[in-house]
Amino acid sequence: MPARKRIAILGSTGSIGTQALDLAALFPDRFEVTGLAAGSNVELLAAQVRRFAPQVASVAREQDARRLAALVAGARTEVRWGAAGTRVVAAGVPADIVLSAIAGLDGLGPTLDAARAGRTVALANKEALVAAGALLMDAAATSGGAVLPVDSEHCAIFQSLLGHNRDHVRRLILTASGGPFYGKTHAELAAVTPAMALNHPTWKMGRKVTVDSATLMNKGFEVIEARWLFGISAERIEILIHRQSTIHSMVEYVDGSVVAQMGIADMHVPIAYALAYPDRLPLDLPALDLALSGGLTFEKPDPARFPAYTLAYEAERAGGTAPAALCGADEVAVEAFLRGALPFTAMARLIGDVLAAHTPAPADSVEAVEGAVAQARRMAEEMVRKA
Amino acid sequence: MPARKRIAILGSTGSIGTQALDLAALFPDRFEVTGLAAGSNVELLAAQVRRFAPQVASVAREQDARRLAALVAGARTEVRWGAAGTRVVAAGVPADIVLSAIAGLDGLGPTLDAARAGRTVALANKEALVAAGALLMDAAATSGGAVLPVDSEHCAIFQSLLGHNRDHVRRLILTASGGPFYGKTHAELAAVTPAMALNHPTWKMGRKVTVDSATLMNKGFEVIEARWLFGISAERIEILIHRQSTIHSMVEYVDGSVVAQMGIADMHVPIAYALAYPDRLPLDLPALDLALSGGLTFEKPDPARFPAYTLAYEAERAGGTAPAALCGADEVAVEAFLRGALPFTAMARLIGDVLAAHTPAPADSVEAVEGAVAQARRMAEEMVRKA
Repeated sequence: MPARKRIAILGSTGSIGTQALDLAALFPDRFEVTGLAAGSNVELLAAQVRRFAPQVASVAREQDARRLAALVAGARTEVRWGAAGTRVVAAGVPADIVLSAIAGLDGLGPTLDAARAGRTVALANKEALVAAGALLMDAAATSGGAVLPVDSEHCAIFQSLLGHNRDHVRRLILTASGGPFYGKTHAELAAVTPAMALNHPTWKMGRKVTVDSATLMNKGFEVIEARWLFGISAERIEILIHRQSTIHSMVEYVDGSVVAQMGIADMHVPIAYALAYPDRLPLDLPALDLALSGGLTFEKPDPARFPAYTLAYEAERAGGTAPAALCGADEVAVEAFLRGALPFTAMARLIGDVLAAHTPAPADSVEAVEGAVAQARRMAEEMVRKA
Repeated sequence: MPARKRIAILGSTGSIGTQALDLAALFPDRFEVTGLAAGSNVELLAAQVRRFAPQVASVAREQDARRLAALVAGARTEVRWGAAGTRVVAAGVPADIVLSAIAGLDGLGPTLDAARAGRTVALANKEALVAAGALLMDAAATSGGAVLPVDSEHCAIFQSLLGHNRDHVRRLILTASGGPFYGKTHAELAAVTPAMALNHPTWKMGRKVTVDSATLMNKGFEVIEARWLFGISAERIEILIHRQSTIHSMVEYVDGSVVAQMGIADMHVPIAYALAYPDRLPLDLPALDLALSGGLTFEKPDPARFPAYTLAYEAERAGGTAPAALCGADEVAVEAFLRGALPFTAMARLIGDVLAAHTPAPADSVEAVEGAVAQARRMAEEMVRKA
């Protein structure tokens, strides 16, 4: 039996955070929860505090911290709030692993805090790597920390690289479900509503990620993430549409061998893998039954109908702050789409326009990254207003 | 650049042997051929001797050795013959790796010789592991040698286990093309001729293996091989029909993750992997293009129409010399089928009858194994005569 791991969770009330806590509850001998940071879901966080008794729990706002303190009165947990509270969970409480699961660019700062503190970061947040990949990987390397992927795709690549020589990699193949609209025509895509976009066929996720999955921007982000996680240039990372989401991603080696990881579509698996690594937890989930699968299909993505992912390749080629600008513009585009201010098909166009207008600078500080994000957001908001 | 590996090949004029020499010719900086053993194809062996200048070349019969010596007069290669000659190639010439590619039970002795001499054995011969798995693995363990698989399926499992903890394995999944007759009814199977059976849809192989593939006996043998190669009991090894032969085999772990290796159907890939391991050769072969694959399908094997593989599970459960008897009975059944003396569907019945009549003894010596094989062969031949 391996030693009990101390886990701190950034974003404990979200989709990834709650599934991680499912695992902590299932394997009390393996995991001790030492810190929980959430946004404003005080009731759920209070229940988590009562269940797991972390050393510190933190929420975004002071008034929520007071409510939380009242709800968990008598618990040994110290209640904190704001950026300082999140920082304590990320880098202050004792932890062998920090699960970074705050969605969006808000997750960047705390993730960097954890990496700089030498923590092993189980990374579910995409934007930290997309917008600030060099900063994050440098921080982990300098501090002696590590970054482990939580995404099912990157977990698959991680597992498919394990034990093999990285010098033998020819390319990475990221599979994509294609989202709920993959078969649709351009005209049908133009008529997609927020409600339609939020209904992802396979994975249960947050709203932002679900829309990004529907446009394939999410897959573009994953290309940039893979580039940083595995040190493989983006030209050697390909996207393959695989509607069944059974093969979670693959690695092709120089002899033509392709190693892949597959399984049922349940995020508990990659979360458990990242939390337990290098151990592996016995999960009581339905086994993958390929004989019942009805076949696995693959096709190249269509950049004409789903141009968003191509912008990620462009941003990665441009380098510096360009991927940060991509993130900022995408956040605004998705927000605008979700409030009905932008058609589905206009999102990629708007993001592309922002990217074209962005002059990349070195992404060598949080300020540079956040500045590029903010500038891209302003530019995107302006474009939404004029649209 | 890794050091040049010295390679001795048992069965150099067969399908696996010639493909291994293709690789030796392509990568002269990686491989030096020090020994070649063949049966009676003197002309091809002479050409190989002239091309690779091994220290020793051996053929089965003395008169062939004289012809070979005449054909390669002036070469620095010493010509040998018979079992003693094969033994020199297996265990006498200096070699980092011995490719065991003599087909059938004839390969058993030389393979054991190589393992006992502490060689790393790249094993293409099936019968050595099926009939004498404990002996072979013990010999390798005692001498400090190793056994690496050359079969595409076992190479896939080897690659899918690499870097992962063996204790986390839930089961192995061996894929099977199903052979040329998988869709056929029992009546159609009864009418299958040797010419039909020798036309395997995917892999170019010897006659015996091709017939064994058509009956699925070959897949049963592979279950027993996997049991010895990877130390996983046969109850945890499953067969899955996968007509496209794209996924070469898989490993399921305790968290439900399935790791698989796939690629085009070209035996150069697993041969190169075994010869170069832990390095990997850059092979100039067409890349696997899943987008062009037309989909991957999977189904459970049908024991009613293809009972042969179930006999392998039975023999493995019976243990001792039972798998050796299985091999002997199968050799006779395939020989009888190929000369038109036994219908396709009668092979499994005959092998099953031999197995049922066999009383397993400990398979703790070559004599015990060869005795069981000979006894099973006699019993099978008797049954063929009476059929």
